[in-house]
Amino acid sequence: MTSSNDAGAPSARTLVKRYRHLAHYDRETIDAILDAMPVAHIAYLHEGQPIVTPTLQWREGDRVYWHGAAKGRMMRATEGADVCLTVSILDGLVLARSAFNFNVNHRSAMLFGKAEAVTDPKEKIRLLTRLVNGFAPDQWDKLRPATESEITATAILSLKIEEASAKVRSGPPEDNESDYAHPVWAGVLPIRLTVGAPEPDPRNSPGVAAPDLSGYSIG
Amino acid sequence: MTSSNDAGAPSARTLVKRYRHLAHYDRETIDAILDAMPVAHIAYLHEGQPIVTPTLQWREGDRVYWHGAAKGRMMRATEGADVCLTVSILDGLVLARSAFNFNVNHRSAMLFGKAEAVTDPKEKIRLLTRLVNGFAPDQWDKLRPATESEITATAILSLKIEEASAKVRSGPPEDNESDYAHPVWAGVLPIRLTVGAPEPDPRNSPGVAAPDLSGYSIG
Repeated sequence: MTSSNDAGAPSARTLVKRYRHLAHYDRETIDAILDAMPVAHIAYLHEGQPIVTPTLQWREGDRVYWHGAAKGRMMRATEGADVCLTVSILDGLVLARSAFNFNVNHRSAMLFGKAEAVTDPKEKIRLLTRLVNGFAPDQWDKLRPATESEITATAILSLKIEEASAKVRSGPPEDNESDYAHPVWAGVLPIRLTVGAPEPDPRNSPGVAAPDLSGYSIG
Repeated sequence: MTSSNDAGAPSARTLVKRYRHLAHYDRETIDAILDAMPVAHIAYLHEGQPIVTPTLQWREGDRVYWHGAAKGRMMRATEGADVCLTVSILDGLVLARSAFNFNVNHRSAMLFGKAEAVTDPKEKIRLLTRLVNGFAPDQWDKLRPATESEITATAILSLKIEEASAKVRSGPPEDNESDYAHPVWAGVLPIRLTVGAPEPDPRNSPGVAAPDLSGYSIG
């Protein structure tokens, strides 16, 4: 069964086949999901076995970036390799009138491609600056400056956003029309990610000014 | 470099090598993470390529279960296959005094093994009952009863919890001792998952009683 919605799928493996009416292939939808949730789950092969590792991701233009210990399993196994990067946000549990129509409200984006290493130290510093300042504006310049060995020990990989799809579900259950008369409560239990008040390190020097973290939101 | 903490690792691929002081291999820690977060990310191979798909998981004793469309890519590709199932919870962003020591507070569990299908319809119904009632106590019996074809169309897979590890980070930054005097604010921006008030389906029959969802928590 095809759907008019299938036309935007950039490849066979990105074509959403289950709940395909929830599929989106436009960059606006995909970028909004990537920008809302800093945690990605990246699947890769290591010694022939699939592994999925959660890690921070950040987007700049047409690319998603992640970083890690240059000597770590994830960074070594994903450099130059085929990966699948998924960002998902749970928005609610959907209680329907039949178990079969139970669902979750969610937003997820799935990207495929070869992970490419960022090797130029200046570009690595620029990207790490962006990561840090994405959490707290102008924070990078206030930090103890990064050393050359720290930059060397940090690998940064990226994936171009081209083979990508998104799935978005919101709203009440979609029950079989004949089930709506069944006398059971149906609805959504909403779930949200919230950012709490900053917790200062007990070892902070007296008088250091807290950064403006009020603009940071997630989910 | 080895650590006394390594002793509990059940296999080479579950041995945590980065931040190994954050590693846990005990079932109590692993089970608590699985029970706190219903979303798992499952990595598997499909036509030789790694894919990671988010899905609901639930634990019963020594096994983790997930379900999906029997004809779907994820269920077909994971039945009898090696998978990696990861559950992760983001608890906060850790702003340190150097970019190198930035971190995230988190709890994650990673399981390896072969996914096994649950094929007995009675056992499938028992497990689905548990999934539904895990969200809202006694809800299963109030639903429009599941049909045989719905049970057939729903595949359930499970993974035994035996090759598993967890990583838990909490608390303030761990800076280099020489960096603590650097005059910058350091601390944690806490992140929490919260469950909101139930949102009734506008098509609910008049007078249906809302289930008791007050006991449901996440994260």
